[in-house]
Amino acid sequence: MISVGIIGASGYTGAELARILCNHPEVRITAATSRQHAGQPLSEVFPSLRGRVDIICENLSIAELCEKADFFFTAVPHKTAMDLVPQLLAAGKKVVDLSADFRLRDVSIYEEWYQPHSSSQLLAEAVYGLPELYRHDISSCRLVANPGCYPTSIILGLAPLLKAGAIEAQTIIADSKSGTSGAGRGAQVGSLFCEVHDGFRPYKVGRAHRHTPEIEQELSVLAGANVHISFTPHLLPLSRGILSTIYASLVPGFDRQKIDALYRNQYQNEPFIRLLQEDTFPATQYVRGSNFCDISFKIDHTTNRIIIMSAIDNIVKGASGQAVQNMNLMHGFTETTGLTSAPLFP
Amino acid sequence: MISVGIIGASGYTGAELARILCNHPEVRITAATSRQHAGQPLSEVFPSLRGRVDIICENLSIAELCEKADFFFTAVPHKTAMDLVPQLLAAGKKVVDLSADFRLRDVSIYEEWYQPHSSSQLLAEAVYGLPELYRHDISSCRLVANPGCYPTSIILGLAPLLKAGAIEAQTIIADSKSGTSGAGRGAQVGSLFCEVHDGFRPYKVGRAHRHTPEIEQELSVLAGANVHISFTPHLLPLSRGILSTIYASLVPGFDRQKIDALYRNQYQNEPFIRLLQEDTFPATQYVRGSNFCDISFKIDHTTNRIIIMSAIDNIVKGASGQAVQNMNLMHGFTETTGLTSAPLFP
Amino acid sequence: MISVGIIGASGYTGAELARILCNHPEVRITAATSRQHAGQPLSEVFPSLRGRVDIICENLSIAELCEKADFFFTAVPHKTAMDLVPQLLAAGKKVVDLSADFRLRDVSIYEEWYQPHSSSQLLAEAVYGLPELYRHDISSCRLVANPGCYPTSIILGLAPLLKAGAIEAQTIIADSKSGTSGAGRGAQVGSLFCEVHDGFRPYKVGRAHRHTPEIEQELSVLAGANVHISFTPHLLPLSRGILSTIYASLVPGFDRQKIDALYRNQYQNEPFIRLLQEDTFPATQYVRGSNFCDISFKIDHTTNRIIIMSAIDNIVKGASGQAVQNMNLMHGFTETTGLTSAPLFP
Amino acid sequence: MISVGIIGASGYTGAELARILCNHPEVRITAATSRQHAGQPLSEVFPSLRGRVDIICENLSIAELCEKADFFFTAVPHKTAMDLVPQLLAAGKKVVDLSADFRLRDVSIYEEWYQPHSSSQLLAEAVYGLPELYRHDISSCRLVANPGCYPTSIILGLAPLLKAGAIEAQTIIADSKSGTSGAGRGAQVGSLFCEVHDGFRPYKVGRAHRHTPEIEQELSVLAGANVHISFTPHLLPLSRGILSTIYASLVPGFDRQKIDALYRNQYQNEPFIRLLQEDTFPATQYVRGSNFCDISFKIDHTTNRIIIMSAIDNIVKGASGQAVQNMNLMHGFTETTGLTSAPLFP
Repeated sequence: MISVGIIGASGYTGAELARILCNHPEVRITAATSRQHAGQPLSEVFPSLRGRVDIICENLSIAELCEKADFFFTAVPHKTAMDLVPQLLAAGKKVVDLSADFRLRDVSIYEEWYQPHSSSQLLAEAVYGLPELYRHDISSCRLVANPGCYPTSIILGLAPLLKAGAIEAQTIIADSKSGTSGAGRGAQVGSLFCEVHDGFRPYKVGRAHRHTPEIEQELSVLAGANVHISFTPHLLPLSRGILSTIYASLVPGFDRQKIDALYRNQYQNEPFIRLLQEDTFPATQYVRGSNFCDISFKIDHTTNRIIIMSAIDNIVKGASGQAVQNMNLMHGFTETTGLTSAPLFP
Repeated sequence: MISVGIIGASGYTGAELARILCNHPEVRITAATSRQHAGQPLSEVFPSLRGRVDIICENLSIAELCEKADFFFTAVPHKTAMDLVPQLLAAGKKVVDLSADFRLRDVSIYEEWYQPHSSSQLLAEAVYGLPELYRHDISSCRLVANPGCYPTSIILGLAPLLKAGAIEAQTIIADSKSGTSGAGRGAQVGSLFCEVHDGFRPYKVGRAHRHTPEIEQELSVLAGANVHISFTPHLLPLSRGILSTIYASLVPGFDRQKIDALYRNQYQNEPFIRLLQEDTFPATQYVRGSNFCDISFKIDHTTNRIIIMSAIDNIVKGASGQAVQNMNLMHGFTETTGLTSAPLFP
Repeated sequence: MISVGIIGASGYTGAELARILCNHPEVRITAATSRQHAGQPLSEVFPSLRGRVDIICENLSIAELCEKADFFFTAVPHKTAMDLVPQLLAAGKKVVDLSADFRLRDVSIYEEWYQPHSSSQLLAEAVYGLPELYRHDISSCRLVANPGCYPTSIILGLAPLLKAGAIEAQTIIADSKSGTSGAGRGAQVGSLFCEVHDGFRPYKVGRAHRHTPEIEQELSVLAGANVHISFTPHLLPLSRGILSTIYASLVPGFDRQKIDALYRNQYQNEPFIRLLQEDTFPATQYVRGSNFCDISFKIDHTTNRIIIMSAIDNIVKGASGQAVQNMNLMHGFTETTGLTSAPLFP
Repeated sequence: MISVGIIGASGYTGAELARILCNHPEVRITAATSRQHAGQPLSEVFPSLRGRVDIICENLSIAELCEKADFFFTAVPHKTAMDLVPQLLAAGKKVVDLSADFRLRDVSIYEEWYQPHSSSQLLAEAVYGLPELYRHDISSCRLVANPGCYPTSIILGLAPLLKAGAIEAQTIIADSKSGTSGAGRGAQVGSLFCEVHDGFRPYKVGRAHRHTPEIEQELSVLAGANVHISFTPHLLPLSRGILSTIYASLVPGFDRQKIDALYRNQYQNEPFIRLLQEDTFPATQYVRGSNFCDISFKIDHTTNRIIIMSAIDNIVKGASGQAVQNMNLMHGFTETTGLTSAPLFP
């Protein structure tokens, strides 16, 4: 049984951590911070948690936090995270950081897309928290950089292909669609019900979204070469869910059977990856509320392209669920603990 | 560990039973029937269940069923249930029936609203499966008539008031709103996305909905007198959720404090009822996917009326969750086993 | 052809006025004010209006406004309106005010529910802009107080009954449900997509909503006596639409046929009221985008209650459409001009 | 004033034709056929049309139809259309066919994707009804093959680029997302509210959707060479709207300015095409209910790709609105007659 603190509990990913952890048999939530809601029970901020979560939001110093918990999830905006994390580590704590601050290994790329980095000394140490790729490193580290939601869906979809050299990396196009929880709980006109409901739109088109360098970093590692892709995010009129439709040209010699084997070899023992049969395609409604990533692919021989589709719940496998999966690994718990709920459908 | 069969597994309540039971530590699903999908894995009918539920749908005789499981959920339409249940009981099985066939104690009322009853001899034995009212009887019975979704929300909202004589029973008006999963998975134009989405409508207005006699039966027991109410169902553009707004005239002498005490006395130890503070109102999004029933009330002194609001997930507390709660009681498991997930929000 | 100004063009009702007026053959929009968006084309604030509306938002003084237009819609918050309207009238302009500032005839009631009134001298002159009740007065006035959305749906539903004394006025309960556009375009957490979508909730329960005195004022006029009702607003996960389900006890002697005649006598020549046949009920999706108010009723003989249902689009008949209807009357245009579009379904 | 018949009035495109035409000053609807709803007013099938459309659905022979109207819209399934249309033409009528039967010029391609063609003699005569490309031919023809919804969005998005040779045609990938009205009004499980709501999925992936040959035919004409593309349709949880995100490699020498000029030259006088400014992207909610097609593009210099986005309302510009636009051209009415409503937002 470990004591866990959620730093930044009043956002959607913070609430989702509380939702998952309140049913985790090895964990007790002993701290939850929120400047805005200090003094309020978290279950008042998120009435869904009434009767399940009794922690009170506090505005705590690092010193106070470190007395209250052994393990921390930092669910705060980038820049805030880079200030907090070093102090938590210095106090001997383990951390899963859900911000972007420790995901990019190259500080110059980070600073190009975000702002100056005050803790770049930790970049080499932080492990990119995609267990399907970095399970071993995660198990023995003290700082996990929890992946972005879009990157999770795209990297998992492409990993077996890039490792095997089955696709031409420079032809990759990822057309991704996300539910609105990804925009966070900030009050802004663009996230109002009436603006989003019954509508659909692209945004940050053409190398404008900050997940681009994160995706390219990991795809480059997998490909063993610098990869640039086209990535277009879109906003779906639903709360939870990301579906990425990914296109690439096939390298000669790879057919359905071989591709199938690549996916199977990589993923057949993965507890949270579900490979779908031919002509069965993922759908966000079938992963809702779960830590699953559903993947399938289709080859179009006329254009010699493969179309890979992957679906996740953006605040579970794309954020808080994956964070708990990482915590499980870091502490030697069974990796699936607290994450076995079946998706909620309909 | 008991073996459980789901008869009628391919509807929404059948799928929901599978979703809940696959995480229940005392239960194994050993049979799932579906005429239409015989031979198909249930997880193919409901891809959300992939990797969690591996049962194959079958078209089984009662004899075959009885060999496969000890406990049964009958999630079939009314009329079908009345034929199956007696045979299951005769074979020594325990049953939670999710249809309407054993809910009404008076066969003539049943036959007025439905059709002739072929198993009316069981009506006296069947226990109305609302644990908050009939926990003791449920624990020792072999047949539970699982309540309807609307009745669950309305009866739980009114029980403390009627038992205490705090409201004038003949003034009760229940204006209820339900998500579309209540209409089932049958292919009909009225349930199509384009017909329901971005719209709202009443239906079966004016004593036309079959849940009316069920509600009135239980309210009459609580009031100790014949009660007739106005009940209007409406269709909401969402999948899961019922919210009932209930109006009644207060009996002189009852004020906020006394009413509050009535609710607290009745419900404060109930694991699935959450009483909300004054001026906090239930919302379907805060119970989604959970077995909770959220209740609050407000008194309007100008009109001398109390307004009670209750919210449930219609296919959890309003159907499959409550059915599992009943099974837990019938088998002596902890009542909340398998039902402790926090609601999914957002 | 008249020149029209929209004061407060950047909210949903302002945009809806522009949407309707841009197809009105007798009107030119010559001014649109928005402090926040001054200098921006209105079609940039609402890209739906691109190619149809070319007015630029400005931050104009009353003097400047009065030079630009002959007729004004004030689509600003209450309190702001009471300051603007007297100046517009003093300049000889006609005004339809969409705020609450001139709806209540009794200044003390206004001040009880809102705040001190600085223009109470206009209350006696302002005409309540429900053409179905006050057409004659509207035609000859210079200031219309455009009704609230909930009041429009409730008053139109009850008018024929109250005028004929067919229901007991003190038994009226109005359970109303509104789409989210009614909450306006302000950035607030409670209106975010993720908070509203896939959910349903009551709010301001028990004489807490400011539309209560407006509804009661008009019902009292119709009944010829002081009327107090129970009115509960709810928030629907859709953009446009209000459906009110209204309950009342029938006065002896009134049956379906007589009630039917009352509605027919009052409404059969009304261009925007559609009376539905028995057992056909209104639905918000069938009035979406139109100025229609659909009404039907059902009698429940067991409880001796009548249930009246009415549906409108809250920002058309409940706001901007009705405002244009009033403008048409004030200027002697055909009442339906610019308002003949059929509802958008699906 | 012409008399118009809608053959197949009880589907969504039939209802949409009625919605548009009932406000068209030059048209009277004099026939509406529906086998299933014969004898019923169309406004009973679609209550939104009450008070606006008074035609009764009938099951009429061709001879009876031809006596009733001069112009016909055939809004029936493919195969049914190919039987009806020759008879209507033989009777001297003009026809806009909304099915796929006359869209493909090459009968062998039609028969590969659909079934044998019984009226292939008309394929040479039928004009593909995209006014932005074929206005002149449409104006003088008697049979228009109204384009598919996906093809409309994709072809309009690509036309200026292909005509100018600005993109490498073999690199085109069209990732398209459609609202559910595109699936029609047939009662099928996959179109139920609970299956579609709060979810998102691809379907018919990898050259499996029948719009593929239609798109490729028109793109090939524009490119002056055989073009094969990747086209992936997805199902959005909304009623109306298609957004296509289209990717292609730029031919050297074309930059933002030149591309901008291509679009402007082709479309600046088009009444229904709105070109958006840089970094403003289309959204389905801004074209809802209108005949607009919104287009913008973005160049990604790192990958040397252009991303083109286009949005339409799939049952207006993607079906019935375009059909009326074609009718206007065929009869010499002003092209925009009846189609000037601004989009409905929110």
